[in-house]
Amino acid sequence: MVKIDLPVIAINFKTYPQATGEKAVLLAQACDKVAGDYGVSIVVAPQTSDLYRVSQAVDIPVFAQHMDAGEPGRFTGHTLGEALIETGCVGTLLNHSENRMQLADIEASIRKAEVLDLATIVCTNNPLVSVAASTMNPWAVAVEPPELIGTGISVSKAQPEIISGTVEKIRKVNKDVVILCGAGIGSGEDVKSASDLGAQGVLLASAVAKAPSPEDVLKDLIEPIRK
Amino acid sequence: MVKIDLPVIAINFKTYPQATGEKAVLLAQACDKVAGDYGVSIVVAPQTSDLYRVSQAVDIPVFAQHMDAGEPGRFTGHTLGEALIETGCVGTLLNHSENRMQLADIEASIRKAEVLDLATIVCTNNPLVSVAASTMNPWAVAVEPPELIGTGISVSKAQPEIISGTVEKIRKVNKDVVILCGAGIGSGEDVKSASDLGAQGVLLASAVAKAPSPEDVLKDLIEPIRK
Amino acid sequence: MVKIDLPVIAINFKTYPQATGEKAVLLAQACDKVAGDYGVSIVVAPQTSDLYRVSQAVDIPVFAQHMDAGEPGRFTGHTLGEALIETGCVGTLLNHSENRMQLADIEASIRKAEVLDLATIVCTNNPLVSVAASTMNPWAVAVEPPELIGTGISVSKAQPEIISGTVEKIRKVNKDVVILCGAGIGSGEDVKSASDLGAQGVLLASAVAKAPSPEDVLKDLIEPIRK
Amino acid sequence: MVKIDLPVIAINFKTYPQATGEKAVLLAQACDKVAGDYGVSIVVAPQTSDLYRVSQAVDIPVFAQHMDAGEPGRFTGHTLGEALIETGCVGTLLNHSENRMQLADIEASIRKAEVLDLATIVCTNNPLVSVAASTMNPWAVAVEPPELIGTGISVSKAQPEIISGTVEKIRKVNKDVVILCGAGIGSGEDVKSASDLGAQGVLLASAVAKAPSPEDVLKDLIEPIRK
Repeated sequence: MVKIDLPVIAINFKTYPQATGEKAVLLAQACDKVAGDYGVSIVVAPQTSDLYRVSQAVDIPVFAQHMDAGEPGRFTGHTLGEALIETGCVGTLLNHSENRMQLADIEASIRKAEVLDLATIVCTNNPLVSVAASTMNPWAVAVEPPELIGTGISVSKAQPEIISGTVEKIRKVNKDVVILCGAGIGSGEDVKSASDLGAQGVLLASAVAKAPSPEDVLKDLIEPIRK
Repeated sequence: MVKIDLPVIAINFKTYPQATGEKAVLLAQACDKVAGDYGVSIVVAPQTSDLYRVSQAVDIPVFAQHMDAGEPGRFTGHTLGEALIETGCVGTLLNHSENRMQLADIEASIRKAEVLDLATIVCTNNPLVSVAASTMNPWAVAVEPPELIGTGISVSKAQPEIISGTVEKIRKVNKDVVILCGAGIGSGEDVKSASDLGAQGVLLASAVAKAPSPEDVLKDLIEPIRK
Repeated sequence: MVKIDLPVIAINFKTYPQATGEKAVLLAQACDKVAGDYGVSIVVAPQTSDLYRVSQAVDIPVFAQHMDAGEPGRFTGHTLGEALIETGCVGTLLNHSENRMQLADIEASIRKAEVLDLATIVCTNNPLVSVAASTMNPWAVAVEPPELIGTGISVSKAQPEIISGTVEKIRKVNKDVVILCGAGIGSGEDVKSASDLGAQGVLLASAVAKAPSPEDVLKDLIEPIRK
Repeated sequence: MVKIDLPVIAINFKTYPQATGEKAVLLAQACDKVAGDYGVSIVVAPQTSDLYRVSQAVDIPVFAQHMDAGEPGRFTGHTLGEALIETGCVGTLLNHSENRMQLADIEASIRKAEVLDLATIVCTNNPLVSVAASTMNPWAVAVEPPELIGTGISVSKAQPEIISGTVEKIRKVNKDVVILCGAGIGSGEDVKSASDLGAQGVLLASAVAKAPSPEDVLKDLIEPIRK
C-alpha cells in the first residue's frame, strides 16, 4: 500500500462542477502544489471518470470516491477494484454518507482492496459505527456526523465529543487504524481542533472544491500542520 | 446528439479483465478498425474509469455503461451525466440487467441525457417493459431476456418472438425509437436473424470482449451488414 | 379482481403513529363508515403488519402499501404477493415515492398481482412516467408530483397541467387504466378540481391519517362525489 | 427486552408457502408445542404480514424477519419498529443474507430496537463481519456462510472454523452478545456440533419450514438440548 504521511488532509471532489473533468485536474494540481510547497500530506478523491487523468497529472495520492464489491466479469456499470487500479489511483473512500454500503460489502471491499494494495477510508456517522468499521481493518475510518456535512459548521467545534469519543472507542479494539474526521471542516482552526481531539487528519469537500481560490483555502487549512 | 448509423453493433465491455484499462483501449481500437475497414456502425461501452482514454483513442462512438440520476454537487461516488460528458463519451446504457434502475430515475436520466446531448440505450427484459421504456423517448431500447445473457444461446434463435413481439408492440406507441436486441449474440448469423426479426442492431458483450481474437469475431458479426 | 367503484378515494396510512396497529383498525373503520353512510368508494392502505387485522375489520377494499417482486421460498423480510393474499387484502400500491421500484420489478409485480387477482396502483411522478407505467397495464396509475407530497398544497390547484397532461397522454396508449392523482389533496374542493381535470380518484395520506377527526375530513373530501 | 433462554433454536419462516398465512400459525404452534413439551427455547420468525396472528397464537417469542430504519410518518411500504411492536412480536432479524442492510442502518435499527425493547439478531457472513456487528451491541449475532444457506450441508460440519473463529474473535470485543450460527442446520447432530464449537443456538429455515412433519424435525433438532 502507498505510504501516506499523517496528519493527512483528504479532499473529496464529490460531483462539483468546479471539480469535474479538466477542472478536476486543475484542482488536484493546486492540491499537489500546496502539498509540495509546504511539506504536508494531501490526498484527493475525484470522480471515477476523472481518476485516470488526475492520477497522471499529480504526485499526491489519488483516491476513488467509491468501489463496488464484486468480481470481474459481470457488474456492468459498477466500478470494481480491478478497474480502479488501472487508473493509477492508490485508494478509495468506502461508505460515504452519499453512497452508503451494506455491511458485508464494506468488508468484502476492504479485503479486495488489500489484495490490490489499495488504501481504504471507510466513512461512518457516529462513534459506534466507527468502531464496527475499524474492526474490519481498513486503512482509515473517517467519522462524519451527517447532519453537519456541507453546513460549514465544523464537527470539531459543534460536536467535539464525536471525535474524542470515536478515538477513545476505536483504540480499545484497533490500535493501528488511522482515524479521520469530517463534516463542516473549512479552516486551519478546524484542522487544529480536530487534531487536538485525536484525529489524524480530516476529510472535507466543499470548502476547497467550491472555493473561488482553492489554494488560499488549502494554505489556511494546512497552517497548523505545515513543516 | 451524435449521429449513429443503423444497423449498429454495440459492444458492452462489462468488467472483463480483457476489457479493462489499457486493454479497454486496445479492444476499442480493434472495434474502431473493423468499423472503418468495413464501413459498419460499431459503438463501444467501456467502464466509467476507462471512458476518458478510450474516447481519446477511437473515432467510433463511446458509450458509458451507466449514468446515475441526480444533479451535480452531491452524490459522492456516483457518475452523473455532467461527468460523462467530460470524458468525451457520446451516450450511455441505462438499466442494464446487471444495474437495474428505478422507473423514475430512468426517465430523469433520459431527460438529463437529452439536455447534455447524450444518446441513451435503455436495456429491458421483455416486450412489455420495452414498450414502457420506449414511451419515455430514449434514443434506443435494447431488449435482452435475462435468462439468455452470457449463455451463448442467441435470443434471435431461442426466443425470436421476444424480438418480433417487442418490435411490433413498440411501434404502436413509438415510431422513432431505435430497437436493439441482445443476450447470447455471438455470430453473424445471430445478427442476421435479429435483423430479419426487425431489430436495428444488437447489444453484446462476452462474445467479443472475451474472444482470443476479438477482430475475428467482429468480422464474423458484421458479415451480414457490411457494405 | 375486486370491483372498485369510481371515483375512488384511496387513503395511504404510511407509517403514521395515528394509523398503526389498533389505531389503523379504528381509522379504517372510520373510512368504512363514511363509505357506507354516503355511498362513496374509499380504499385504505395500512402497513403490511396491520393488513390482516384491518382486512378483518372492514368491508371496504384494503390495499398493501408495497409488494416486493420475487417468488416464494427466499426473500427473507420481503413481502410477496402470496403473503399479501393471505391477509385478506385485495390490492397494493406499487412504486410509491417513498418506495420507488425498479422498472422491471414494477412490471413483474403487476403480472404477479394479475395472477393473484390483486389490484395494482402504480405511483408515478410526472406525465411521461405515468404513460410508461400505464403501458404495463396496472389497474390504476396515481400521478403525484413529489415536490407537493405532504405540503398541503394540492396538485389539482398548484399543477393542474400535471393531471390534465397525464390524462391526455395516457389515453393515447391505454383506454382502460384508472387514473388517480395525489399530492397535497386535503379537501372536497381538491377532489372536485382533480375530477374536473379528468382524474378518476385521488390518493392521499396526511390530511386524513393525521387529522384530529378523520371522519370530518373524509366527509368534506367526499362531498363532491357523494350519492 | 423479553428473556430468551439459551441455547435457542430460531426458525426463519422465510416466504415458504408452507409457512405463510394460516400455515404460519400452524407451524408456529408446532414449534410452541415442542418448546413446551420438552422445555427448550425456540423462537419463530414469520413474515411481516403474519406477525400479528402468529403472535396471538403462540407463547414462544415471535421475531420479525426484518426491520427498516427510519422514523414514523414517511417510509410508505416499509416496516418500522413502531409497527412491529403493535403486532406483539418481541424481536427481529436484521441483515439477513436475503435482505442485507447498510452498516449505518443496522446500527440505527439496533438502537431503535433498544428503545422499543425489541431483541435483535444480526445475521452476518463471516467472522470479521460478525465482530463488526457485535460491536454495535445487538442481542445476538448469527453467522451464516452464504454459500451453505439452503444446501443442507451444515456449517458446523463443513466449516467448523467459521463458528469457532467467530466465537473467539467476538469474545475479544464483546463478552455478552449471544452468538448463533446458521446455514445448512437440519439435525440434532448439527445443533450439537454447533454447540460444541461455542454457538449458543442456531438459526435455520428450510429444514423445519419445508418438512413434511415439522414436529419430527424439531424433536430431532432439540434432542441434544432438551431438559
